[in-house]
Amino acid sequence: MSNQSLADFSSAHLPKVNQVMRDFLQKVTTEQSLWEAMDYSVSAGGKRIRPLLFLATLDFLGVELKKEHYEVAAALEMVHTYSLIHDDLPAMDNDDLRRGKPTNHKVFGEGMAILAGDGLLTEAFHLVASVDLTSDLRVMLLEKLASAAGTNGMIAGQTADIEGENRQLDLKQLQKTHQRKTGALILFAVQAACKLAQAEQEIEDLMTVYGENYGIAFQIKDDILDVVGDEQELGKKTGSDESLNKSTYTSLLGIEGAQKKLEHHIDQAVSSLHDVQDKISKKDVSLLEKLIWKLR
Amino acid sequence: MSNQSLADFSSAHLPKVNQVMRDFLQKVTTEQSLWEAMDYSVSAGGKRIRPLLFLATLDFLGVELKKEHYEVAAALEMVHTYSLIHDDLPAMDNDDLRRGKPTNHKVFGEGMAILAGDGLLTEAFHLVASVDLTSDLRVMLLEKLASAAGTNGMIAGQTADIEGENRQLDLKQLQKTHQRKTGALILFAVQAACKLAQAEQEIEDLMTVYGENYGIAFQIKDDILDVVGDEQELGKKTGSDESLNKSTYTSLLGIEGAQKKLEHHIDQAVSSLHDVQDKISKKDVSLLEKLIWKLR
Repeated sequence: MSNQSLADFSSAHLPKVNQVMRDFLQKVTTEQSLWEAMDYSVSAGGKRIRPLLFLATLDFLGVELKKEHYEVAAALEMVHTYSLIHDDLPAMDNDDLRRGKPTNHKVFGEGMAILAGDGLLTEAFHLVASVDLTSDLRVMLLEKLASAAGTNGMIAGQTADIEGENRQLDLKQLQKTHQRKTGALILFAVQAACKLAQAEQEIEDLMTVYGENYGIAFQIKDDILDVVGDEQELGKKTGSDESLNKSTYTSLLGIEGAQKKLEHHIDQAVSSLHDVQDKISKKDVSLLEKLIWKLR
Repeated sequence: MSNQSLADFSSAHLPKVNQVMRDFLQKVTTEQSLWEAMDYSVSAGGKRIRPLLFLATLDFLGVELKKEHYEVAAALEMVHTYSLIHDDLPAMDNDDLRRGKPTNHKVFGEGMAILAGDGLLTEAFHLVASVDLTSDLRVMLLEKLASAAGTNGMIAGQTADIEGENRQLDLKQLQKTHQRKTGALILFAVQAACKLAQAEQEIEDLMTVYGENYGIAFQIKDDILDVVGDEQELGKKTGSDESLNKSTYTSLLGIEGAQKKLEHHIDQAVSSLHDVQDKISKKDVSLLEKLIWKLR
């Protein structure tokens, strides 16, 4: 709640999220090989953006972080991790490197990678269904998570994404694809936190503006890094969008245009955050503001 | 509730389950191609054993079937259908024929088949989360469904199954694999119905014996048909267990031994059903008894 650094916040809370993921998966998984495949991807690091957004939003709205929040954050990261494993498969994006390590199917084979993804997705719902909150809240979270991850959310976005290969999209189509592919789960992180914080509708609406702009900014940054980023640092192959002939923010707007659009969405998000701060009388620069500044 | 035939029961209720699946998927899916891939497998027929078990158990326990029951039955069949799509993939069982039609990836490609499976799984949870029952009941159903479909259930069984290729399993290992691969979802059908019917624990325990024996009998029958069945009639390739060098009930016990074991589990299931009938004072031969007789 104080003017803490992102690094401090991360090291105070993310290890607990990681621990929940590992403990829960170990508890519910009866095949050693399956557990190893899931744990490989879950333990491969990653920026944990979605758990951070979820936890930082709760913190921003004055909620003391507890076990149930780490559990929801863990489920969210499990859904994200499943999507990476499946997206990396040869039949999809065919990536060999992820988070600086060989992709799941490169290590465990395609069959096991499909099962590991299926397992992470299913157990994410299992985890939320058994979290220590009222049934009403659990149902709310499950409904929102399934919706964000589902066929009008992340899966629809991934469908549009692979169908967009070798096809020229305009900016509106591109945005619609990403709003679902990456935006929906990011928005879940922010909105679910608002619900658990029992935020007023006006606050949730403003936070939604933050979440939507964060999602777009995140994708623009991802596109820029795919052109100018360092493979070693990113832990994944760059230039893959161009080789798959995908429309991206940089292919449509150029690097400079994309950068300008990125700034615009960061500004929108920050402005919306400041409106919330005025309403809840917080003065410190928030973790959420620091989080989005990192996309510059 | 009367002494109705299975055919009458099926034609009275299964079309409603099919309708829920199609309507829900159409409502929540924003990409036409994704919807077509999911609908292809959902509409490809199949015996609808799991929805039938669920609905017939509710009927057996005196519950009048309503919209919410068709919705749960639909979700259950969606989870089953996703598992078929993924299991048929080249990286798994590599099957070309399913329910008398080319498998999903043969028609839509591997990438889309993976996404269609992911979509059906996710939207099954979405459907249960939004079903018209109390939050407590929805959470109970979601927890049980995720557990049955998860990494100590169906996915663990499928893992053990593909790892069992080219390896000799004993009867106990084989049974453990199938208890999870097919048994868990079948047991969900029966147990979830008991919960919704508010059956006493004693009744649920007896119904669990029925469900467990049904699951084993179902798998033995499947193994026998893979050896002696007619491809045209089954709508899938036979002899695939042998070609994948899988341990099966027939490879371990011979056809005659497997048939004897099948009879044993049918008898156990029926005996347990009769115990329930004594307790709830029902005299007619139940649909559940007719359902399991069909496995002879």
